[in-house]
Amino acid sequence: MTTRFDGRAVDELREVRITRNWLDHAEGSVLVEFGRTRVLCAASLTEGVPRWLKGQGKGWVTAEYAMLPRATHDRSSRESIKGKVGGRTHEISRLIGRALRAVVDMDKLGENTLQLDCDVLQADGGTRTAAITGAYVAMADAIDTGRKRGWIPAAVNPLKDSVAAISVGIVNGTPVLDLPYEEDSTAETDMNVVMTGSGKFVEVQGTAEGAPFDETELTALLGLARTGCAELTELQRAALAEDA
Amino acid sequence: MTTRFDGRAVDELREVRITRNWLDHAEGSVLVEFGRTRVLCAASLTEGVPRWLKGQGKGWVTAEYAMLPRATHDRSSRESIKGKVGGRTHEISRLIGRALRAVVDMDKLGENTLQLDCDVLQADGGTRTAAITGAYVAMADAIDTGRKRGWIPAAVNPLKDSVAAISVGIVNGTPVLDLPYEEDSTAETDMNVVMTGSGKFVEVQGTAEGAPFDETELTALLGLARTGCAELTELQRAALAEDA
Amino acid sequence: MTTRFDGRAVDELREVRITRNWLDHAEGSVLVEFGRTRVLCAASLTEGVPRWLKGQGKGWVTAEYAMLPRATHDRSSRESIKGKVGGRTHEISRLIGRALRAVVDMDKLGENTLQLDCDVLQADGGTRTAAITGAYVAMADAIDTGRKRGWIPAAVNPLKDSVAAISVGIVNGTPVLDLPYEEDSTAETDMNVVMTGSGKFVEVQGTAEGAPFDETELTALLGLARTGCAELTELQRAALAEDA
Amino acid sequence: MTTRFDGRAVDELREVRITRNWLDHAEGSVLVEFGRTRVLCAASLTEGVPRWLKGQGKGWVTAEYAMLPRATHDRSSRESIKGKVGGRTHEISRLIGRALRAVVDMDKLGENTLQLDCDVLQADGGTRTAAITGAYVAMADAIDTGRKRGWIPAAVNPLKDSVAAISVGIVNGTPVLDLPYEEDSTAETDMNVVMTGSGKFVEVQGTAEGAPFDETELTALLGLARTGCAELTELQRAALAEDA
Amino acid sequence: MTTRFDGRAVDELREVRITRNWLDHAEGSVLVEFGRTRVLCAASLTEGVPRWLKGQGKGWVTAEYAMLPRATHDRSSRESIKGKVGGRTHEISRLIGRALRAVVDMDKLGENTLQLDCDVLQADGGTRTAAITGAYVAMADAIDTGRKRGWIPAAVNPLKDSVAAISVGIVNGTPVLDLPYEEDSTAETDMNVVMTGSGKFVEVQGTAEGAPFDETELTALLGLARTGCAELTELQRAALAEDA
Amino acid sequence: MTTRFDGRAVDELREVRITRNWLDHAEGSVLVEFGRTRVLCAASLTEGVPRWLKGQGKGWVTAEYAMLPRATHDRSSRESIKGKVGGRTHEISRLIGRALRAVVDMDKLGENTLQLDCDVLQADGGTRTAAITGAYVAMADAIDTGRKRGWIPAAVNPLKDSVAAISVGIVNGTPVLDLPYEEDSTAETDMNVVMTGSGKFVEVQGTAEGAPFDETELTALLGLARTGCAELTELQRAALAEDA
Repeated sequence: MTTRFDGRAVDELREVRITRNWLDHAEGSVLVEFGRTRVLCAASLTEGVPRWLKGQGKGWVTAEYAMLPRATHDRSSRESIKGKVGGRTHEISRLIGRALRAVVDMDKLGENTLQLDCDVLQADGGTRTAAITGAYVAMADAIDTGRKRGWIPAAVNPLKDSVAAISVGIVNGTPVLDLPYEEDSTAETDMNVVMTGSGKFVEVQGTAEGAPFDETELTALLGLARTGCAELTELQRAALAEDA
Repeated sequence: MTTRFDGRAVDELREVRITRNWLDHAEGSVLVEFGRTRVLCAASLTEGVPRWLKGQGKGWVTAEYAMLPRATHDRSSRESIKGKVGGRTHEISRLIGRALRAVVDMDKLGENTLQLDCDVLQADGGTRTAAITGAYVAMADAIDTGRKRGWIPAAVNPLKDSVAAISVGIVNGTPVLDLPYEEDSTAETDMNVVMTGSGKFVEVQGTAEGAPFDETELTALLGLARTGCAELTELQRAALAEDA
Repeated sequence: MTTRFDGRAVDELREVRITRNWLDHAEGSVLVEFGRTRVLCAASLTEGVPRWLKGQGKGWVTAEYAMLPRATHDRSSRESIKGKVGGRTHEISRLIGRALRAVVDMDKLGENTLQLDCDVLQADGGTRTAAITGAYVAMADAIDTGRKRGWIPAAVNPLKDSVAAISVGIVNGTPVLDLPYEEDSTAETDMNVVMTGSGKFVEVQGTAEGAPFDETELTALLGLARTGCAELTELQRAALAEDA
Repeated sequence: MTTRFDGRAVDELREVRITRNWLDHAEGSVLVEFGRTRVLCAASLTEGVPRWLKGQGKGWVTAEYAMLPRATHDRSSRESIKGKVGGRTHEISRLIGRALRAVVDMDKLGENTLQLDCDVLQADGGTRTAAITGAYVAMADAIDTGRKRGWIPAAVNPLKDSVAAISVGIVNGTPVLDLPYEEDSTAETDMNVVMTGSGKFVEVQGTAEGAPFDETELTALLGLARTGCAELTELQRAALAEDA
Repeated sequence: MTTRFDGRAVDELREVRITRNWLDHAEGSVLVEFGRTRVLCAASLTEGVPRWLKGQGKGWVTAEYAMLPRATHDRSSRESIKGKVGGRTHEISRLIGRALRAVVDMDKLGENTLQLDCDVLQADGGTRTAAITGAYVAMADAIDTGRKRGWIPAAVNPLKDSVAAISVGIVNGTPVLDLPYEEDSTAETDMNVVMTGSGKFVEVQGTAEGAPFDETELTALLGLARTGCAELTELQRAALAEDA
Repeated sequence: MTTRFDGRAVDELREVRITRNWLDHAEGSVLVEFGRTRVLCAASLTEGVPRWLKGQGKGWVTAEYAMLPRATHDRSSRESIKGKVGGRTHEISRLIGRALRAVVDMDKLGENTLQLDCDVLQADGGTRTAAITGAYVAMADAIDTGRKRGWIPAAVNPLKDSVAAISVGIVNGTPVLDLPYEEDSTAETDMNVVMTGSGKFVEVQGTAEGAPFDETELTALLGLARTGCAELTELQRAALAEDA
């Protein structure tokens, strides 16, 4: 059963670490690690909302994802130097934003903005799922900060649920959970699943990189993802239960 | 059953039209219409491949998606004038490219590049699915042109399968097929599914815009998508069976 | 006399087609064809004017011209991807805007903006002149829409005249009218002329691509242009006389 | 007759000064002044041609026009800071390049490139015509430098003719020559004419800024331009006859 | 002692020329020459300040530095065409701005902005120090213009001191003053020093291009700079003492 | 004497921590901390040099500095999103590159490139000096890796010396060492000094933010910097002496 190159079972997560308050300035911050993947998630809470949302009494949640040049095995060039943000970066930033918005009640947030910055310090597969999982915790802390400072009424909780994400894929014909780079780069199918703490789907993004997949494989992958997200939800709860 | 604002059944496609050879210069070209959504797909076949692929005897397939400024109800500004391509445009371009590559045997294509340009002339929901469905037909024509001109050996068929795409979603609690803008803008869940002609999945991209969705809803959506893609596959075959 | 490669007389236009209301959303829209040249002209009428014009009670007319990548024989790269608009595109956009402004009474338009988008779907010479000729008709329809919707007082007509444009040039020593790509690419002199329906000049842009030209040749070219614009004016009138 | 605000006759040029060798490094350089308009023209001659021209034994001539921020009455922002070149700048750069190429025999130039930089130090109308007139002299000097240094065979003269340019326009109903800003900004029609030393047209660019113009007015403007260009041709010859 | 290639003593400036009012439109303007280095400094005085400074009753001083493409021995490409401003340009612009702000009392300037444009027409080393030295004189003239026009109360003098700058360096082991390109390109250490008229330091920027330098060398360089700045201060005073 | 808000003596460094091998992929990497300032320095060693240096047998060292958006107290926007790198970023990147090149023998490095990425994870003053100090250690490790892997001959040591940097400034009239943000933002003079391990100057960059400074103050600042750099040199040696 443990045929994976790193000795894990097919339905086993890598070691996950969630370190809160890694930064001093941010309203919430988390260094999240899925094995060697390491993402710094900073949550900034500011008064006001983008212009198109003003005067509606609603808040906004948005995210930006980026990778340091030497996060990867070979250095990649800096998007600021290239003068434009690549398609992959855009796509993941939008994904993280949607995932987080799914669990926030914008009316309860009031006219405040939560900006999540997810910077990959080291990449070894699963950076977007680590980012979502860590960003949720940073966001929860930022909301807590906001309530303590009175920006958000203390009696109100804008969080409707928690959210976590995991990658699954078919590697050498076998559905597996939480793919590191070595597996990800050879997977026939790669899927990222975002789920709420209460077990519902927020995003399902499956792509056949090699051979197209059938309904049986899809079902297996969704099952693994459900398992993984449930475990991550527990880890998020445990992290948030600790004294900040 | 026909509770939809345009009178369609929940599992009914809009009228689909595939007009081949809409352009005189391109090696393959299609004007594809899903109801009022109208996308011009031009397939350019050129010798040579990008630098990173040279000397491997393999071909390449890539795509660019864009929208004319007044394709939409209100005019949107031109990305060329803004000087950068938006995240949504990037994301859809990448999706179309992956979808088409899934059905092409790059070894058989030889060191040739297929560039698909999908320009939305009018948008009424489902532009990316119309683009994939039309681009496949334009690509098939371009490959045919290549074989006639001897760029690709006539005895070789680089196409492994066909590919089509459709949107499904949950509108007012009901899973429906092929959403026009009016439904798309209020859907709780929106999903784009790309399938091969032989009925396998290439991409499944589901997003909870409103409430997260559960497994039952996911199953219903995938069922509708299967129906829609099968019908589109038939329409593609019929279009390609006609004399060009 | 009919020495031209497509059998036309030196003073003969290609077949011109003006199809109104090609789009559903735009306030005015025209698909204009000069032979194989095909330009989609969308006129957007919106309330308000650019900041520098506010509070003067005057309107504004502006235009953007662009070419789809595979409009031409060989694919050209997308200006949005390159991140900047080329000199030729800028130049033609400015020309179209000036041509249209010449026939609009800005005081009567009121503080409204007419934005003309001229997208070349297929190019075979004369794209800028087709764009001007078609954009005038789309603009007339948009003004009509504005008067019907009450944005412009129904009693007021902001149009002072009509405007059309044609290319002329010296090919193999002979002055000819309405050059397709095959002639345009070898012409010694290339001239674009914009005229009002009442026969006055709005723009004369003549360029010696090969040998400089003398006054006799200039006179011959202006004569041909006069003929061509008069015919286009008739075709515009006929198109606008039909029920929309 | 002398109804112009600066006392000139309608067919009278402003004072024109052509100062050669204003720079120490450039192969040719001219400070050209049309009244208060002051343009620095630097001609750089380098071996080699752009990639698309290599191996054909032909040369290339190209130009870039720009304006210093405080060349104008009110400061305009720097195009380098804005990160993009405006349409007007593009348009004039292209015009200057075409004008100069009209008098150079590319075969005789050999695989060398002439790059003309025309930077407006102070603007008072007619900057593009001053630029063309001065750039021709700078180019002639650069070609001379090239022949002295042996980059171009001394026995060969790549110059086929000289080229100069002047603006004409209709101001308060009267056709006038060489418009300063005060006239240019109120002219009904504005025309730039580029002519060879032998009296042929290279470019005619006339624009009705106000009322469209008729054939009589066009003829009057072309007559004035012919006079002005002939005088400029004489001034260019005189300047080049002096010891450098 | 006079071992320098151009015959100067180690502590001798090149010939410095300060020509005021070189432009007609700008509130202050100077063509400053340090030997063959030639910089045009235009000072624009406008009402209002950047948004972040509004309502505080304070003024603002800012600067932009740029080089014409053929200011240098070999042509360099235009930053506007490249679409971005290089690091060196940014750095020098910021330096000039800081130097000028050091001698202006922002409260006395009132809510007005002084924009200094320093464009290098010809470069032969020391362009940034010439720019600062010339820009101060242009700024003094612009302030004078502002007082004459009543934008700044005539009784108030926003200038606290004057400012000038000079380069020093170690060439072949010898500390020298005011390096032309030929020395600058081989200097082991290069230092730019900005000083007030009253002899205090505003900026000291020393860089070891070759071997690191010790305290003795640093002291020698600062001594030379003090001499040079004192002489430049005298030249500025003399220039400003002339009738404009 | 200990009048500083954080209790330090005027000549006392903040707590400095140098953590080697913070990343798994990079040839050398350091997390350097000066109090709350935290910079991740990654050194990438690759074969080959930039085009302009090819074939000379010499290596190259270059650096890029950047700040994460929430490194600072208030979030700043991402330079990749803005599409251009700011002047400050450019300036510091260039400074770091020059500092490191001062201690590397390019001939001994051979045709290899060292790219240093210095990303500020948290900023509290002195980010550029921390970056230089940490980058030297990361570079030393990368060179060591290169020698172990045989990219650089094991017998050759391209390092000529070590390099470190510290900030000094005048705060409330008192010269102090190693300024955190709270002091930096109110300093009258701010100076960054880069020195070799053997006690020579590589860079001296002093700026009067408030009142200009005199020679006595300059001497005091240089003395403090000498002390600070000497201590940092010891800390670098100690860090490199540990087993990696």
